[in-house]
Amino acid sequence: MSENNSVGIVAPQIAHFSEALPLKSGHVLAQYDLVYETYGTLNAEKSNAVLICHALSGNHHVAGIYSQNDKYPGWWDNFIGPGKPLDTNKFFVIGLNNLGGCHGSSGPSSINPDSGKPWGSAFPIVTVEDWVNSQARLLDKLGITQLAAVVGGSLGGMQCLQWTIAYPERVQHALIIASAPNLTAQNMAFNEVARQAIITDPEFHGGDYYEHGVVPRRGLRIARMLGHITYLSDDVMGEKFGRKLKDTIKYSFDVEFEMESYLRYQGDKFAGSFDANTYLRMTRALDYYDPALAFGGDLSLALSSTKAEFLIVSFTSDWRFSPARSREIVKALLDNESKVSYAEVTAAHGHDAFLMPDAHYHAILRSYLSKIQIGNHHEK
Amino acid sequence: MSENNSVGIVAPQIAHFSEALPLKSGHVLAQYDLVYETYGTLNAEKSNAVLICHALSGNHHVAGIYSQNDKYPGWWDNFIGPGKPLDTNKFFVIGLNNLGGCHGSSGPSSINPDSGKPWGSAFPIVTVEDWVNSQARLLDKLGITQLAAVVGGSLGGMQCLQWTIAYPERVQHALIIASAPNLTAQNMAFNEVARQAIITDPEFHGGDYYEHGVVPRRGLRIARMLGHITYLSDDVMGEKFGRKLKDTIKYSFDVEFEMESYLRYQGDKFAGSFDANTYLRMTRALDYYDPALAFGGDLSLALSSTKAEFLIVSFTSDWRFSPARSREIVKALLDNESKVSYAEVTAAHGHDAFLMPDAHYHAILRSYLSKIQIGNHHEK
Repeated sequence: MSENNSVGIVAPQIAHFSEALPLKSGHVLAQYDLVYETYGTLNAEKSNAVLICHALSGNHHVAGIYSQNDKYPGWWDNFIGPGKPLDTNKFFVIGLNNLGGCHGSSGPSSINPDSGKPWGSAFPIVTVEDWVNSQARLLDKLGITQLAAVVGGSLGGMQCLQWTIAYPERVQHALIIASAPNLTAQNMAFNEVARQAIITDPEFHGGDYYEHGVVPRRGLRIARMLGHITYLSDDVMGEKFGRKLKDTIKYSFDVEFEMESYLRYQGDKFAGSFDANTYLRMTRALDYYDPALAFGGDLSLALSSTKAEFLIVSFTSDWRFSPARSREIVKALLDNESKVSYAEVTAAHGHDAFLMPDAHYHAILRSYLSKIQIGNHHEK
Repeated sequence: MSENNSVGIVAPQIAHFSEALPLKSGHVLAQYDLVYETYGTLNAEKSNAVLICHALSGNHHVAGIYSQNDKYPGWWDNFIGPGKPLDTNKFFVIGLNNLGGCHGSSGPSSINPDSGKPWGSAFPIVTVEDWVNSQARLLDKLGITQLAAVVGGSLGGMQCLQWTIAYPERVQHALIIASAPNLTAQNMAFNEVARQAIITDPEFHGGDYYEHGVVPRRGLRIARMLGHITYLSDDVMGEKFGRKLKDTIKYSFDVEFEMESYLRYQGDKFAGSFDANTYLRMTRALDYYDPALAFGGDLSLALSSTKAEFLIVSFTSDWRFSPARSREIVKALLDNESKVSYAEVTAAHGHDAFLMPDAHYHAILRSYLSKIQIGNHHEK
């Protein structure tokens, strides 16, 4: 928590791709942009690159600040920087915004070159597999053949897993944190409620709200409030808010408990800054990812072609992606005699723990990453 | 599950109360109606009465059918009837719809005698304490001084607990099932999301939608979908639906997984039959109930005046009202040297388990209820 070594002021870059990208849905993206940032220096052999895959509401701004007075560093700044667990003195770190996003990469809110208007509902549904393919093309553009590591939490962890499946030769290490080999029915149910809140918002207009000059703010707000419940553990909610009242009880539907104030604030903030169509697509990507499906449900078989070494991390209080789900990945890797380290971190913060600078957790990441030998290509 | 001994065809009755009821909020209901049903026969001593307290979406139709071809018996029909665990050959069972409800008792959708229009937003917020007071008046009207037992699950269990606190002389036995001495922050957070979905529905009109000829169906649908997730365990959702697809994947926001179909169906059904204003009030009653609050958070102190004997039942997979919450009640009762039996039932169905005819669960209820000696007033 005392790490103040920032990567400093950073700036996003845009990569344009004019080669068509076939998507899992059958759609083809004729051209697209990916916005990305990098931290640290790519070595001459281009062998020290680490790709960060973001989760549902993340983006390419992973570390650093945009100006001297910027109070809000990138979303995983506590993890990445000179001397930090992911040490930018050693590694060249790449963060990007995934396709379908709303932070600069091609997505529903960006302009469809065919129509000159925002894509809206016409932007195809993208999958974890599509993202990994698009990320591979970004690496091609940067001249990076093999990643020293791919790192991600939650939905980001699914992308890491997919990297090891789709591009076994291109990944030395995969750090898969607070993730799962697929969603449970309960996970998918929460996603469905969130999506229905957005889609049934009268200002959704079938996804083409841009041209109506409105946004489905109510629905997105409900979706985010619900999300926040699943990111936190019951215990940490109890510690943080408990049954604390804002004031004396008013017997009303206004804010009575501090918890309510927190949820409404989080919902309002998100609804004013995130794109609803992106939210829909991110949750669908989560729903669909299931690498074992093509192998009759056999995850071990699905992972049999991987060549990476793995660090799998889970958190005891994470009920969204519970330790048991991480252990399914570990088990499947062990079935294949892959090199895998597994850490189950005792943490109170639930799913959100993967973003927190917990000392034990960061020590595990630091230790694992410090042992990676740059340029030492894996052999299985 | 093989019990077919129905109480048969039943009919609701209405009790009108013209004596003003002061509410915890400070409001006073000048007059009100309670709709109720009874099953079995009240004995000459009026000492065999059992009151059933309903949960969030329940009502007075607890057992029996309304006509020979009625396919949908009361909501706890598997538990109540001749020869069933709550045996109507022995007990006189009363079910009522709580104040603020939408099934015949005075509530937001009923006519406000002062205005001649539906109450809407003007109907006050009612609490568990208010309900128990109104239930006591119904018993007065029926000439019942003491209940042989009060029985309820979830929010209904909170009413049972409140009965033993507010009317210690009037309750011989309290059966408190799948309940808690108050809500956790997480419980309250789910309620808040549900309420916000309703309140921000453009057709809510501040609660006065009746006069606009609309209902906030979208919001109520979202609230109910969310509720269903919390009533079921992750495991039972997994068993029932898992990741089963409706058809081949279409890469769309339409129904792809069976779980989605189930949730939408449940949401639609409920939104077409339940009143949104009632839903708001039921969740607030849940939020506010906290008998320990007036005793500095000391539940043992809050329960020190109770004289009833208790059966507390919880279910292992209930993450909404977990066994740990039931054990808090048990602990507080033991601190007071109350007579208390506790059963933690191994069940897969989550919170919904309290409504299921699980053999072990029903055997516990049957055994406890069979030992109740009618007319044998409690001594502490």
